[in-house]
Amino acid sequence: MRARDMAEDLPTVRLDDGALLAATMLARRRLPGVVVVDGDPGRPVAVLPASQVLRFLVPHYVQEDPSLAGVFDERTADRCAARLGEQAVRDLLPPADRRTELAKVDGDATVIECAAVMARLRSPLLVVADRDVVHGVLTASHLLEILLPAQGT
Amino acid sequence: MRARDMAEDLPTVRLDDGALLAATMLARRRLPGVVVVDGDPGRPVAVLPASQVLRFLVPHYVQEDPSLAGVFDERTADRCAARLGEQAVRDLLPPADRRTELAKVDGDATVIECAAVMARLRSPLLVVADRDVVHGVLTASHLLEILLPAQGT
Repeated sequence: MRARDMAEDLPTVRLDDGALLAATMLARRRLPGVVVVDGDPGRPVAVLPASQVLRFLVPHYVQEDPSLAGVFDERTADRCAARLGEQAVRDLLPPADRRTELAKVDGDATVIECAAVMARLRSPLLVVADRDVVHGVLTASHLLEILLPAQGT
Repeated sequence: MRARDMAEDLPTVRLDDGALLAATMLARRRLPGVVVVDGDPGRPVAVLPASQVLRFLVPHYVQEDPSLAGVFDERTADRCAARLGEQAVRDLLPPADRRTELAKVDGDATVIECAAVMARLRSPLLVVADRDVVHGVLTASHLLEILLPAQGT
């Protein structure tokens, strides 16, 4: 079984798409992250985790001291959400030269190769792609399901 | 709305439970991670991510050089899975003094407090608990869903 056969379909967003589109996609489909591509259809360049969007929404002073959350009411949250509407996906990611290595394998990678890349990068999502064609993603728990087929509890 | 009302039920495992039980739970329910408690019902002490179990299953030399995965065939994987049967959950976690800070809030935390803790620790899972009572977990995408209720795509 090869990575392209195991990969599950997941929506992608482009670097130039609106940040609010990506946030709404993560929220509505309850995704842990979304694959970001450069161009259309495009080369995968990053995974945008939902927690990264939260970092954008919550001011730094509240992240450092959650007891200050009291001064950050829901109207303030609404204003932050509105700010998402003015940003692009690329604004939520680190600059290209400071991005962490993308967890990615070719379509013909074996399950062990997939597990090895995911384990090394401690990534919750693995992108399966050949050049500009994103086949989909694999999660760590999906790989465990494949690796432990005959085990019972 | 308070954290205890938003939290979703998620199974927990104990430090002394078998590692194979935890791995099978992650695989079958396709969970990104599971909350580890010390004792019964127990105080939450860590989140065991599915990617951490993969790190245990895949030998270091294959993680460092996935091209060596060819020598790591499925029978070897079976042996690694069998090794899980001999370990406890605590063996898959770093020692207590080297564990990263647990992403956790009290049951009465507000949505902004939850988002702040999750954003600061870049954690995909937030544990909601009062002392020995685990109310459940929140994911980053669930918090986004609450914070962006009125937004459209």
